[in-house]
Amino acid sequence: MFNVGLIGAGRIAGVHARAIQANPDSRLLAVSDVNVGNATALAEAYSCRTASTDELLHDPDIQAVLIASSTDTHADLIEAATLRGKAVLCEKPVDLSLARAFQCMNATEDRQKPIMVGFNRRFDPNFRYLEQEMNAGAIGAVEMVTLTSFDPAPPPISYIKVSGGIFRDMMIHDFDMCHFLMGSLPETITATAACLVDQAIGDAGDYDTAVVTMTYTDGRIATIKNSRRAPYGYDQRIEVLGSKGLLEANNQFEHTVVKSTEQGVTSAKPTYFFLERYMQSYQNEWDAFVNSLRDDDAVPVSLRDGVMALACSEAALLSLQSNRPVALQEILNQI
Amino acid sequence: MFNVGLIGAGRIAGVHARAIQANPDSRLLAVSDVNVGNATALAEAYSCRTASTDELLHDPDIQAVLIASSTDTHADLIEAATLRGKAVLCEKPVDLSLARAFQCMNATEDRQKPIMVGFNRRFDPNFRYLEQEMNAGAIGAVEMVTLTSFDPAPPPISYIKVSGGIFRDMMIHDFDMCHFLMGSLPETITATAACLVDQAIGDAGDYDTAVVTMTYTDGRIATIKNSRRAPYGYDQRIEVLGSKGLLEANNQFEHTVVKSTEQGVTSAKPTYFFLERYMQSYQNEWDAFVNSLRDDDAVPVSLRDGVMALACSEAALLSLQSNRPVALQEILNQI
Amino acid sequence: MFNVGLIGAGRIAGVHARAIQANPDSRLLAVSDVNVGNATALAEAYSCRTASTDELLHDPDIQAVLIASSTDTHADLIEAATLRGKAVLCEKPVDLSLARAFQCMNATEDRQKPIMVGFNRRFDPNFRYLEQEMNAGAIGAVEMVTLTSFDPAPPPISYIKVSGGIFRDMMIHDFDMCHFLMGSLPETITATAACLVDQAIGDAGDYDTAVVTMTYTDGRIATIKNSRRAPYGYDQRIEVLGSKGLLEANNQFEHTVVKSTEQGVTSAKPTYFFLERYMQSYQNEWDAFVNSLRDDDAVPVSLRDGVMALACSEAALLSLQSNRPVALQEILNQI
Amino acid sequence: MFNVGLIGAGRIAGVHARAIQANPDSRLLAVSDVNVGNATALAEAYSCRTASTDELLHDPDIQAVLIASSTDTHADLIEAATLRGKAVLCEKPVDLSLARAFQCMNATEDRQKPIMVGFNRRFDPNFRYLEQEMNAGAIGAVEMVTLTSFDPAPPPISYIKVSGGIFRDMMIHDFDMCHFLMGSLPETITATAACLVDQAIGDAGDYDTAVVTMTYTDGRIATIKNSRRAPYGYDQRIEVLGSKGLLEANNQFEHTVVKSTEQGVTSAKPTYFFLERYMQSYQNEWDAFVNSLRDDDAVPVSLRDGVMALACSEAALLSLQSNRPVALQEILNQI
Repeated sequence: MFNVGLIGAGRIAGVHARAIQANPDSRLLAVSDVNVGNATALAEAYSCRTASTDELLHDPDIQAVLIASSTDTHADLIEAATLRGKAVLCEKPVDLSLARAFQCMNATEDRQKPIMVGFNRRFDPNFRYLEQEMNAGAIGAVEMVTLTSFDPAPPPISYIKVSGGIFRDMMIHDFDMCHFLMGSLPETITATAACLVDQAIGDAGDYDTAVVTMTYTDGRIATIKNSRRAPYGYDQRIEVLGSKGLLEANNQFEHTVVKSTEQGVTSAKPTYFFLERYMQSYQNEWDAFVNSLRDDDAVPVSLRDGVMALACSEAALLSLQSNRPVALQEILNQI
Repeated sequence: MFNVGLIGAGRIAGVHARAIQANPDSRLLAVSDVNVGNATALAEAYSCRTASTDELLHDPDIQAVLIASSTDTHADLIEAATLRGKAVLCEKPVDLSLARAFQCMNATEDRQKPIMVGFNRRFDPNFRYLEQEMNAGAIGAVEMVTLTSFDPAPPPISYIKVSGGIFRDMMIHDFDMCHFLMGSLPETITATAACLVDQAIGDAGDYDTAVVTMTYTDGRIATIKNSRRAPYGYDQRIEVLGSKGLLEANNQFEHTVVKSTEQGVTSAKPTYFFLERYMQSYQNEWDAFVNSLRDDDAVPVSLRDGVMALACSEAALLSLQSNRPVALQEILNQI
Repeated sequence: MFNVGLIGAGRIAGVHARAIQANPDSRLLAVSDVNVGNATALAEAYSCRTASTDELLHDPDIQAVLIASSTDTHADLIEAATLRGKAVLCEKPVDLSLARAFQCMNATEDRQKPIMVGFNRRFDPNFRYLEQEMNAGAIGAVEMVTLTSFDPAPPPISYIKVSGGIFRDMMIHDFDMCHFLMGSLPETITATAACLVDQAIGDAGDYDTAVVTMTYTDGRIATIKNSRRAPYGYDQRIEVLGSKGLLEANNQFEHTVVKSTEQGVTSAKPTYFFLERYMQSYQNEWDAFVNSLRDDDAVPVSLRDGVMALACSEAALLSLQSNRPVALQEILNQI
Repeated sequence: MFNVGLIGAGRIAGVHARAIQANPDSRLLAVSDVNVGNATALAEAYSCRTASTDELLHDPDIQAVLIASSTDTHADLIEAATLRGKAVLCEKPVDLSLARAFQCMNATEDRQKPIMVGFNRRFDPNFRYLEQEMNAGAIGAVEMVTLTSFDPAPPPISYIKVSGGIFRDMMIHDFDMCHFLMGSLPETITATAACLVDQAIGDAGDYDTAVVTMTYTDGRIATIKNSRRAPYGYDQRIEVLGSKGLLEANNQFEHTVVKSTEQGVTSAKPTYFFLERYMQSYQNEWDAFVNSLRDDDAVPVSLRDGVMALACSEAALLSLQSNRPVALQEILNQI
């Protein structure tokens, strides 16, 4: 049984709390949040105690820490928690600054405790099934990958302003998914983007619509399409063309009822947003983390994976700003 | 090359004329119709001549006759044409009277020329594919068959009144399809029916909604569902449960475009009616007839098949009237 | 907060225990089972105590009893629990004997405590959505209903022998679903059945394949198709034809991945069995029960509903044995 | 009635001949081909005469010429035919040389006779339906377009060598489709490509796998994905994200039969190649051409459209060679 401290008590922390309690090998011991009311509410809901983050990090009864606080605290907390001998599962991204993320990676590389980054989509049952089929050779050698990730609606402008931008905040998931599916990092990244959904997003210096193409040293090509708005719901699909066929992971839908009338045949929309679509993936992510701890195995998403996804985001941004393909190595060399 | 005389120049005759001309081994030589204007129009469209039915039946250049005139003429024309040494493809049904249909079968049984009944659905590419998979063992031993046949809208009451009723006019196709799929005739037939679509149909002594269950000596069960109205289009499906799986032949749709909006996901309706849905089946039916003539093979739908489909209709009607399961043999014994 | 006693600790009791604990307004207080080991294991898993059934029924702290013990105990326990002032949710069927079920209904009709029968499928989100659309007029007036319920594989013969047969054990769910959808009971029931899956089922006097047609006084027709074997998974579908269109509730599938190769396009099978498919429906069923208690509303599935589903089973069996349509009233008159 | 001369008697010419004869307002008068045997066979099949190309171009009875000969003859024949007062429908591409295509456009711009380029996909009923819905505002303002065009298998290397390469031979269809859908030309074109299917294609200096991203002055983004190999059949899809929803034109499939077994749910593959998939589009293309002639309307695909699609191909190639986004204007400036 692993005792867990949860840092952060916002919406996503609630999802994690639920996953921690549902795993028979883990137990939520304490929760901390700068907003004490949030911490108290979450603690009550899951019958654990509140603590300051510092208390939590020093509590010898806590073996693992889940970091779900604001992004700017992630790197510091990863370093502090591992220093105290805690295993860490940290929400993405590691930091908005690639340099700081690298620094964190270097600072913690000799520590004995596992650090996992929370790219939950790797644990989505459908994507996982696709990945298994792909790696089992169901469609031969992979040639082209396409990721479609459209949010149902843009977040508030206040969030956009501190998000790090569409590449670091949203497409980072897709960069990690490509890493996961391809088994290697891209050689070059070429980005295009526009502000088509809400002018306020553009005014904040960000984009709401983006397409990125990535090439791999062996010739494979990946394309990522992002939009901050899909009025029909959360659109999350993967398509892989291989030498022997095509694999598609389609959306999940709200129900299975089909209505046929004079007006046409109508079926359900995709489930609305990530809490519906990815609830299972958060559970599976936590279960995988606990299994790694229990079996003393490597965690399935390393801190380096988290840093590399951020490096891809950085390359995309540079590509967009400089209007040219950017080699990932160029980004890595700058660190 | 087979020279063909076409008796009848209505809508379905036009479909047949097209099929005859499209087959490289057949040629439309003459068309007859009690409505001379119809005959003339069709003859012009397909560059053939008009004739009286009698001339057509006596024309030594004509080897095959396609009977697409009104139902009450079918039996007489089958007898007359075969007497003159013509091969015959006759539209369904053979006659509305089972006794007359039997008489026609008996009267022509020694004639050397093939007689085929036009159950076009046997030649629908999707149903044919299902049948081939089924008979190739794709789902093991057949256990349960369900046929859904809903027309988009009821025909005019004037047609209903001379149609012979829903079992002889509409469900006869499904009785033949069951015969085709099962490879044998049912042992018992149990019918239920209602008038739910249009009270005028009920006033005419007919039904617009019917469900029939049939049992086979080896335990297999078939269910047929008919409605005169499906506002979303022509609904024509087959489902077969076997010991190793399920086969479904679904509808064909008007297009492949899917629209996803806040209101839901909308796709195309089934193709509207039999001219769209079964156009290919009429061509394949004719091609199969011509191939039989050319290769001196048995025609794929015999006159007996046509009579037996009518006997099933009769059994269903008796079941409904007597409120009990009716053995098909009981009907056959009455002849 | 309602304190709940759970009678029975088998597989389905585990599903109910989970639902009870997940509802914020109910708490599992005690579990009883003739098999003490089962009771102990379940009690440990859900942190409650074990008790004898008698203790449980006499415990003044328990307001509601969930009866998930063997079928032959249901009627007695319903009577005993309501006598002690407990609200009751009882698994289907009420009893295998219609007379005993009636007796139970009569014996408890004056008691003040609600009795609900566990027809979980009414609470399946997809079926519920279909029912809501239907009753909101999405397809106009209902004309024809078709229920497909195929189990993935037959239960053990030992279970078949005590099950009451396919109509009382399996199709009873569909009889209740028809009641739920139609809003009234059928006028006549006509059954056909066969033993096609496993001869041992036939040797036990039962059937594994059945089709039932039901008529309603207003002309509507319902068809139920049951098979004990669908090798591709649990096949649970509803189709409703109305005057303005068609509603279909399709299966849920194991995943959303589609593979296209030279061999064809392959997608997921339906979820395997009722624990996967109907897990949510058990939760929703319990939540509905608790809401009824809390709000002092009528329970959504009454004891009478449970008895009437059994009466339909009885009518189907009589129809099969006497080879004729059976009026439901004929069955009810016999009581 | 328009009399038509057909230049070329290869496979695609046969498709055109069929379309010409099926249109009630056009008639195939003569066919020419450098391979006299091909010309004779086609002329026999469609009951017309053979001619030399020169005879055909000088025949005063011929009002329209369909050019389906080899690509290197297109520009010369367009010029020659319009000089003789013939209306022209010319297969794509206008020429492999953009300079020559421009020259042809300039040389013919004052001629009174319409010149249409055969981008048949614009006339595919599904794509046309998508375009109509899109332009009717079904999904609001267009933001992102994705075209998937995968051939089932690569052509012979001998063809690859004279094809002009994947951008001029294959993706040119998609460039035109983007032009058609977007209603304007792209501002920039960025290409990536690889040789993953067959090394011999790479040895011939070509690619078999390519992804192109295009930006528009108003911020819209289009992505085109091409592969010379999709083992499951001809994969031809369009997806358009708009401010109010998503439109997808999916593939057409070989049949509608679905098989469900223990191994999964299997359905049909896409129709194999363009003759199956686009047969209707060739007919609709010809009908649109004839309607333009008859009504004295502008043809729906102009010679300029053909030249601009080629310019896009050229830009894609330059982007690939120079590893940078290329402005379409840069290409146009070079002419």
